[in-house]
Amino acid sequence: MRGFARSEFEARCARAQGLMAEAGLAALMLTTEPEVRYFTGYLTRFWESPTRPWFLVVPASGKPIAVIPSIGAALMGETWIDDIRCWSAPDLADDGVSLLAETLREVVPVGAKVGLPDGHETQLRMPLADLERLRQAIGPREICGDSGLIRAIRMVKSAAEVDKIETACAIAGRSYARVPEIAAEGVPLERIFRQFQILCLEEGADWVPYLAGGAGQGGYADVISPATPTPLAAGDVLMLDTGLVHDGYFCDYDRNWSVSTPSKEAADAHGQLIDATDAGAEAARPGATASDVFHAMNKVLKAGGEGTDAGRLGHGLGMSLTEWPSLIATDHTVLEPGMVLTLEPGIATKGADGRIVVHEENILITEGAPRFLSPRYGREMIVL
Amino acid sequence: MRGFARSEFEARCARAQGLMAEAGLAALMLTTEPEVRYFTGYLTRFWESPTRPWFLVVPASGKPIAVIPSIGAALMGETWIDDIRCWSAPDLADDGVSLLAETLREVVPVGAKVGLPDGHETQLRMPLADLERLRQAIGPREICGDSGLIRAIRMVKSAAEVDKIETACAIAGRSYARVPEIAAEGVPLERIFRQFQILCLEEGADWVPYLAGGAGQGGYADVISPATPTPLAAGDVLMLDTGLVHDGYFCDYDRNWSVSTPSKEAADAHGQLIDATDAGAEAARPGATASDVFHAMNKVLKAGGEGTDAGRLGHGLGMSLTEWPSLIATDHTVLEPGMVLTLEPGIATKGADGRIVVHEENILITEGAPRFLSPRYGREMIVL
Repeated sequence: MRGFARSEFEARCARAQGLMAEAGLAALMLTTEPEVRYFTGYLTRFWESPTRPWFLVVPASGKPIAVIPSIGAALMGETWIDDIRCWSAPDLADDGVSLLAETLREVVPVGAKVGLPDGHETQLRMPLADLERLRQAIGPREICGDSGLIRAIRMVKSAAEVDKIETACAIAGRSYARVPEIAAEGVPLERIFRQFQILCLEEGADWVPYLAGGAGQGGYADVISPATPTPLAAGDVLMLDTGLVHDGYFCDYDRNWSVSTPSKEAADAHGQLIDATDAGAEAARPGATASDVFHAMNKVLKAGGEGTDAGRLGHGLGMSLTEWPSLIATDHTVLEPGMVLTLEPGIATKGADGRIVVHEENILITEGAPRFLSPRYGREMIVL
Repeated sequence: MRGFARSEFEARCARAQGLMAEAGLAALMLTTEPEVRYFTGYLTRFWESPTRPWFLVVPASGKPIAVIPSIGAALMGETWIDDIRCWSAPDLADDGVSLLAETLREVVPVGAKVGLPDGHETQLRMPLADLERLRQAIGPREICGDSGLIRAIRMVKSAAEVDKIETACAIAGRSYARVPEIAAEGVPLERIFRQFQILCLEEGADWVPYLAGGAGQGGYADVISPATPTPLAAGDVLMLDTGLVHDGYFCDYDRNWSVSTPSKEAADAHGQLIDATDAGAEAARPGATASDVFHAMNKVLKAGGEGTDAGRLGHGLGMSLTEWPSLIATDHTVLEPGMVLTLEPGIATKGADGRIVVHEENILITEGAPRFLSPRYGREMIVL
């Protein structure tokens, strides 16, 4: 099924409004794509245009109110939202600020607080100068942080959300399985990137917002580079990492292949990554923390050699390519059933001059052992 | 050629630093993908992950300084930037704020100003709470707006930039020419969307960040919707609008097709759009304003009927799908050679119950008549 039942949005609003009451917030003000979509179901690629701001106001009770450019009226009208207030954007003199201020004055009592996500992994998607204008226009109401409540509710996925992530993972799995059709010694990496995106679309991706990768002797320099024209050579490790989208939800995992038989060092590094992934999965139970999972993986990696510069060994996943929490030593988020995580260990290949290998799988936290949403890869790389 | 010669980045910095001196800014602080890429050439799809902030400091003289997560160090090291300062992100306690503050304290004298883009079409890509921490950490230096200087310099493209946009336009042109291979009566719109993205990749797109469109009897309800499973029917007008990327630069134009012979009303509406585009191109000379081009197009559209809710009749184009200026009555930006614009008239189809048709082409402002970067489409829609 595309989209969600209305009850999904009602439940999301109810959870938010419960936490808003605890935090003393009379409304939430949201500006980014996943935040607006989470409460409305409004799905469009038009966010790619940075020109127009979009706003959603979640009041203390009742349905959210959309305050949006008129170009979005027809599509927003197809969601469960009733109260859709539009202005003709872009308006150089007043790009929605008055209309948003009027809406906030209506639903927020004088002296009360409006929560705006302002913490880690959040952004403000509106001109900064307009936020100041808005503050002036709604005084004596106060704009403050959201106390992390958006983070808290988005981090635990519903069964319907998990279903979409799992579908995205399955599409990527079928695409990865076909990589031997498009990658071999002598094929330029940029051609493999283009062909792999085609495979993802053929296998059912709606679109492919993220593809990175690398290839090199025994490993690659980093995991975020775009393609180069360099052809694959014997002894290369090829890595592709995609975040493709199904109905607005991402997968995010990678695969490594060896071009001809891998060196012992590359094979060892890859095996170590699978062992680390297994250790991470073993630790990823309800009640454990993100930090616990990090340490379980890091212990295996440290036994094998040097780490990488990635800064973490995995993260949350869902409506965005990456979400909270982070698998780092200092993230003490307690795992709960319904959280979706990537396990993403990386390691430097011995004797390969700083080259690294990174592996990634996607898991769902359950009451017991986590469920792999991505089809698990073995210790031995597939040879191209 | 991929990327740019070093002289391109030197020229961009020199222009920025000239305007910074005029505006009394001791440094620029940049946080978004196109802003960082404009001065560095740093090109990666990793910005799809919202987790980590990235910073670039442009000092009053000398090369920019990158203050970035360590995961980006290897790739940034391949650009012309020498001074690359990294922290291990994500860091929940201090996600680059101290390192950025230290850098700003080093290059900005006490009491001087740091410019941060805060006007129309800009965003702050870092947690809002961290901006406040940064203000505290660099006082008594002041963070203020950038006086629109980023807008001013990005709006006029170099020959090398135009070349990349033109290549993107040509890739889309070849893809649109092949639409009769994938679209016909009975084919679901979502299949056409997927297949069209494959065509774009086959024809050479690096990736396809934007695809929207619609189909319906005599027109469509809006121009920003994702695909539906509805099959094309005789009498439908099909529209596809893509912003695909070549080497980090976008095209942004659409095409309409008629499924079987169009109604007189749909044919008239489409013809009117081509006439409006021609009128816009005729007006788009150096010295004319964005407003002049708007009025030239709007005059033709008004003679033909009702407009749409798009809010404008075209816009700038380049490193982002949409850029300044806007073709609206109130945008008095004076056109200069080197600006790249979309001409994007829309009109309601008579008797088609609020359905619209929208046409779009991409032009380059020159000393004389503008040059079409997209292959011009005729008054008559191609019949599928």
